[in-house]
Amino acid sequence: MSSLIRPLVRALAPYVPGEQPASPGLIKLNTNENPYPPSPKVLRAVRAATDERLRLYPNPTSRRLRERLAALHGCTPEHVFVGNGSDECLALAVRAFVEPAAGRGGRRGTDRRTLVQYFTPSYSLYPVLTDIHGAVRHPVPLADGFALPDVRALARQGRWRADAALTIITTPNAPGGRSYTTAELDAICRRQRGVVLLDEAYVDFAREHAMALALAHPHVLVARTFSKAYSLCFQRVGYLVGNPELIAALDAIRDSYNVNGLGQIAAEATLDDLPYYQRNFRRIIATRERMSDGLRSLGFEVFPSETNFVLVRPPRFAARTWLERLRDRKILVRWFDSPDLKPYLRITVGTDEQTDALLSAARHILRVRASGRTTRGRR
Amino acid sequence: MSSLIRPLVRALAPYVPGEQPASPGLIKLNTNENPYPPSPKVLRAVRAATDERLRLYPNPTSRRLRERLAALHGCTPEHVFVGNGSDECLALAVRAFVEPAAGRGGRRGTDRRTLVQYFTPSYSLYPVLTDIHGAVRHPVPLADGFALPDVRALARQGRWRADAALTIITTPNAPGGRSYTTAELDAICRRQRGVVLLDEAYVDFAREHAMALALAHPHVLVARTFSKAYSLCFQRVGYLVGNPELIAALDAIRDSYNVNGLGQIAAEATLDDLPYYQRNFRRIIATRERMSDGLRSLGFEVFPSETNFVLVRPPRFAARTWLERLRDRKILVRWFDSPDLKPYLRITVGTDEQTDALLSAARHILRVRASGRTTRGRR
Repeated sequence: MSSLIRPLVRALAPYVPGEQPASPGLIKLNTNENPYPPSPKVLRAVRAATDERLRLYPNPTSRRLRERLAALHGCTPEHVFVGNGSDECLALAVRAFVEPAAGRGGRRGTDRRTLVQYFTPSYSLYPVLTDIHGAVRHPVPLADGFALPDVRALARQGRWRADAALTIITTPNAPGGRSYTTAELDAICRRQRGVVLLDEAYVDFAREHAMALALAHPHVLVARTFSKAYSLCFQRVGYLVGNPELIAALDAIRDSYNVNGLGQIAAEATLDDLPYYQRNFRRIIATRERMSDGLRSLGFEVFPSETNFVLVRPPRFAARTWLERLRDRKILVRWFDSPDLKPYLRITVGTDEQTDALLSAARHILRVRASGRTTRGRR
Repeated sequence: MSSLIRPLVRALAPYVPGEQPASPGLIKLNTNENPYPPSPKVLRAVRAATDERLRLYPNPTSRRLRERLAALHGCTPEHVFVGNGSDECLALAVRAFVEPAAGRGGRRGTDRRTLVQYFTPSYSLYPVLTDIHGAVRHPVPLADGFALPDVRALARQGRWRADAALTIITTPNAPGGRSYTTAELDAICRRQRGVVLLDEAYVDFAREHAMALALAHPHVLVARTFSKAYSLCFQRVGYLVGNPELIAALDAIRDSYNVNGLGQIAAEATLDDLPYYQRNFRRIIATRERMSDGLRSLGFEVFPSETNFVLVRPPRFAARTWLERLRDRKILVRWFDSPDLKPYLRITVGTDEQTDALLSAARHILRVRASGRTTRGRR
């Protein structure tokens, strides 16, 4: 039986997405969704398109959406790739630009063509995609406070590979929340001889973005998504911007109709109402700062964030205990079971009301524990 | 520049999907869409779900839909994989069950683990997926009239591989339209030592389906789609049924949120109104027979079809000429630029009105040509 399945696939440890609870009663601060709904214009556009057209195939190249994105970013539609969420964009980049290591024998781990390089911690999907493709992980630790390390120094020690086939940088970083300047990113891009993918999933909550690098350098791609900032997780639309030759390579290996039609329509309508979203970004940023201050005042260590989440080290109890006690109070946050992230929780910025509930729950957990009661009977 | 892209990807010839025209004035008989809209219940369910929920991630495992499909087919949800259209299901099957040939040196083409075996003609995506993965195509010609060949005899000549890692059978055949009995398919499945994928994209228009084989044999998968029979091309929902170990392998390599939320909801609502679709199947089958008779009376050779399209060899002019002349009359049909299919057109079964327009256009094209006028000035 198992001989029917590739050994590489049998050996995979799957990526575990955050919980998507079926019950609606929970405060969901675990998967970085926007707490505000899509623009009413988007909902109207999707409802208006929900008619006999559903029987037809969608545009196979997301043509209109690519034209709109090109106008937004000051490039041509040939610079834009639209995917089934930015996860598909990332997966295709690994498969287009990186060689599987299998069969490359003794050079495994040193052959530049097989290397997917990324900082740790960052999006936990990168090593999963690397493994699925049979390529070679090349994780490089970030410096203190999730700062970019001195890659020149690391390169001299053989710990940074300027020749890696693909280097992925999450900017702003997830789950750290820290952002990087375009100048810092440009310096790294200029050193790299393989493809550099700047994963800007959270960039709308940051002060600076690096889209210019995708248009300036032939080997740099920027990934964006409609999921988080644009409240469209449900419909799976992400995109990449970069050199048309790289985009064409991704096009050659994607499914023909990779982006569903209502997703394309929703994304196009989103671009018709950007001020609506920009107002929400400002609200989320204000709430983020208030939440950060509130958590700090309760003894949490809070990393400065330019995203719609904060990474925190909670006081008194282990992070995993906090995860469970918050869940008891119907609040979902994210905890990563990895050595470097075990002490932390990642908390999505919700509405002001959800943030009040979170702070109140945190106060209660600290108070109840401080009073010395046991947890017996509570779960 | 091009050194950034894998040589395998640079060398790919992309799959060319049928034209999806932007202008609505055309009669679209080129990509096998159902001429009838989705059930009103489906449209209502999608509109009702188009609200603030779009900000949330969809269920990552299409759980409710898998439960419904399991109930429909008499299996468990662990027997069901839901994909972003059946195209994604097919692509993942190649990547889960077949080894890339690169690096396997001299054994290329004979190593069973690298072989994707399929009949020709059939769905032109199979060789494309094989090439994208760097696996080895093993096409086997069908017998006359698109009948299944005697694979036992072919195996003795080394032309059929009972040990191929993956064998894909389109049943009913596309673009031929011919169906196969479960007994015939079972006989082939029993010989195979690799995975067999029965691609039943068009099976709702046939007399017999082979779902039982996916539940009887641990190495057999059946692929289905909501696109064609269920008028849902726009939303990209396909699925596979088979042994949970095979399903788990596909799960390990798919994107976490591979199926958009409104697509899941539309597919679930489809299952609430199957009688609506079954009525449409009967209408399409009746129209197919009337169209076939009408075309035969005009001198077309028409292959018997158990799908929602017919393959025809048109009279008097080359198929490609017919393609252009029908397009001049705003009727799109499909022509495949491959040696074995050049003489044919594939025509989707439309509404009765569309079929009348097609027959009328065909009569006109034959009459105009018969009168000896030139085409000058017409294009």
